[in-house]
Amino acid sequence: MTGGPGQAGQVWAHVGQPFGEREYDVVVLGAGRMGTACALYLRRLAPHLRLLLVERGGLPNEEGATILAPGVWTRLDVPPGREAEAQWTHANLFGDPTAKPLPLLRLHPEEGPGRVPTRQMLARFPEAASLLDPDALPWAEVDEDASTYRPGAVALACGQAAVREGADLLLNTHAHLTPGGVRLDRLTVTNTHEIVTHETHEVRAGIVIVAMGAEGPAAAEQDLGIHTAHGRAYRQFPRLNTPSDGWTPVLRAGGLTLRPQHGGFTVVPPLHHRDPSGYVPQGGRLTGVPVGVRRETLEDLTRLMDALPPLATGALEIGRSLADVPGAWVALPGGQVDAPPRHEALGDGRHLLLGGPLADTLGLAVAYDLAARVAGVEERPWG
Amino acid sequence: MTGGPGQAGQVWAHVGQPFGEREYDVVVLGAGRMGTACALYLRRLAPHLRLLLVERGGLPNEEGATILAPGVWTRLDVPPGREAEAQWTHANLFGDPTAKPLPLLRLHPEEGPGRVPTRQMLARFPEAASLLDPDALPWAEVDEDASTYRPGAVALACGQAAVREGADLLLNTHAHLTPGGVRLDRLTVTNTHEIVTHETHEVRAGIVIVAMGAEGPAAAEQDLGIHTAHGRAYRQFPRLNTPSDGWTPVLRAGGLTLRPQHGGFTVVPPLHHRDPSGYVPQGGRLTGVPVGVRRETLEDLTRLMDALPPLATGALEIGRSLADVPGAWVALPGGQVDAPPRHEALGDGRHLLLGGPLADTLGLAVAYDLAARVAGVEERPWG
Repeated sequence: MTGGPGQAGQVWAHVGQPFGEREYDVVVLGAGRMGTACALYLRRLAPHLRLLLVERGGLPNEEGATILAPGVWTRLDVPPGREAEAQWTHANLFGDPTAKPLPLLRLHPEEGPGRVPTRQMLARFPEAASLLDPDALPWAEVDEDASTYRPGAVALACGQAAVREGADLLLNTHAHLTPGGVRLDRLTVTNTHEIVTHETHEVRAGIVIVAMGAEGPAAAEQDLGIHTAHGRAYRQFPRLNTPSDGWTPVLRAGGLTLRPQHGGFTVVPPLHHRDPSGYVPQGGRLTGVPVGVRRETLEDLTRLMDALPPLATGALEIGRSLADVPGAWVALPGGQVDAPPRHEALGDGRHLLLGGPLADTLGLAVAYDLAARVAGVEERPWG
Repeated sequence: MTGGPGQAGQVWAHVGQPFGEREYDVVVLGAGRMGTACALYLRRLAPHLRLLLVERGGLPNEEGATILAPGVWTRLDVPPGREAEAQWTHANLFGDPTAKPLPLLRLHPEEGPGRVPTRQMLARFPEAASLLDPDALPWAEVDEDASTYRPGAVALACGQAAVREGADLLLNTHAHLTPGGVRLDRLTVTNTHEIVTHETHEVRAGIVIVAMGAEGPAAAEQDLGIHTAHGRAYRQFPRLNTPSDGWTPVLRAGGLTLRPQHGGFTVVPPLHHRDPSGYVPQGGRLTGVPVGVRRETLEDLTRLMDALPPLATGALEIGRSLADVPGAWVALPGGQVDAPPRHEALGDGRHLLLGGPLADTLGLAVAYDLAARVAGVEERPWG
């Protein structure tokens, strides 16, 4: 039972904890950053609504896009007209102790508005000098207001705050949409490491929010018999073991981002288009030799090896098989790689909430917007 | 041995016919439209070069993009600056007895240069009236010079002419590039319907032309240890059993083409982007029910159902599994869906010849261009 005002919610982490609830006002499926943020905002905007947050794994979700998201907020990614929401998202990140301001340097082969010579810029960012060839990328622009953060830390903080403020949380549970609410399969692991359903519960809920990331559209289609136009793409984040420190800026060139992290860099490759339905991620081949980075990403890296010389060295971890390189499915709203996060009504009190490639920049605001809509609140804090 | 002037070449169709050749000047791999045309032009431009055309299946190739290609020539598909080559390709199609002039009607939701009201256009093309909703697509333009043809018939005619004019032809043979030429695995079928290598031949050749369609880049990479940036996409051609006759124009809307054929229509869906390396084609699901058309194509069809009402009827054959809907891999030069056919030198006398999505419009000219380059001929018939 969701706690009353000032009372924390209940958490069921494993099947040893009996779950007997039959009804909620709102069920949120998925404890990634979108679902946890929406749950938290719902507690604040509509504390009278009994709320259950359901997650297939732990908190935060570890298999989706949240944990591996680049965690780069930059005005360069803000779609026109969405500036206020992006600023609001940015301001609210600072609830995340890992968030910190860090300039982002975007490099170009040709001149353009707002660009200065790269050599001149390198005087300000000497840490970046060894990372790039200023002859290949002679023009640079800088976003002074950029930040880096860990989306997984945001999801953890939002999820914990939601529970503290009265949301119930059910972990290790696979959810299906049903006509009157959700069917919840509580999962457990057998002695032979098989994941099986331990018990199943039918829970009534007038409002269900599907925040299952790249799996949300397929789940909604499967359970509701509808058709959506959303897509997904499998993105890998190879590690680049070239030293970085707290002053190394985020670098971006040719759509690829080098994000300083853990004393090196996380390589964030561009997304070119969605992967086809049914695609199974697999590693690529570099002149015949199997590697862990998918072929399409390998081509992006190869293309940039002259401009960003460390990519051509052993400092880049491309692995030997897919499992060697961290990767995740990211939702593509409308099948587009540049579409902002969005929510949409699926009818009968069901809502689909999608983060996608721009969740770093706009995710929290869109999660808030859905929470406010469900709560019947007209105002938005970004005005 | 390639025949002398005026002498036909030899054909080895199956392993019962002993093959003892050790050396050619040129070996062309692949008897699709690009390979057969290049072989024919080579016989004409350089009759002194002994030439072998090798094909894994029969003549014409039946598993690649040639047999299923739309076979629509239209100036709407001609890239800027390539008009003369496109016209030359068009003029040379008429060696194909199946080629015939047929106007192409492109329909648009909004006004634009060269467009007239669709209702007015339908007075001229009454056969098209039942196919489209003029309120959804109120503007139309027409290409009066369009033609339809069968690329498979062109490949057959070119291949036969090449042999008549002295090329040798080795069928049912899988080829690999080797340092000095090619290794040829002659294939046969066992009693248990398994395809196996019956015998292997090493053949020296100073020049090898890889015209294996969507498989060419992978074969070149595998055998030569190089890296190319080419891609491929799996395209399906569902059948639409709405009646057409000899006066029904080709229709195009939203990137999708309806090509009158066999008393109905072949549906030619748009190509949006390449498929990832390792993607295995599979059918889609329509609100949960499995169908034979891939998901991405299904979305294109769904989007156009209002504008092209027959697509929403049982006249559209979407099948129950992948095998029900004809489909083929098409090469995407440079990974782009709108890139013209091209050839490129791979070093050491090896050339890659790619048709791709615009092979209908420019294929023969690009095959000629490569033949002329190999023959050392400067002039091009398109001036």
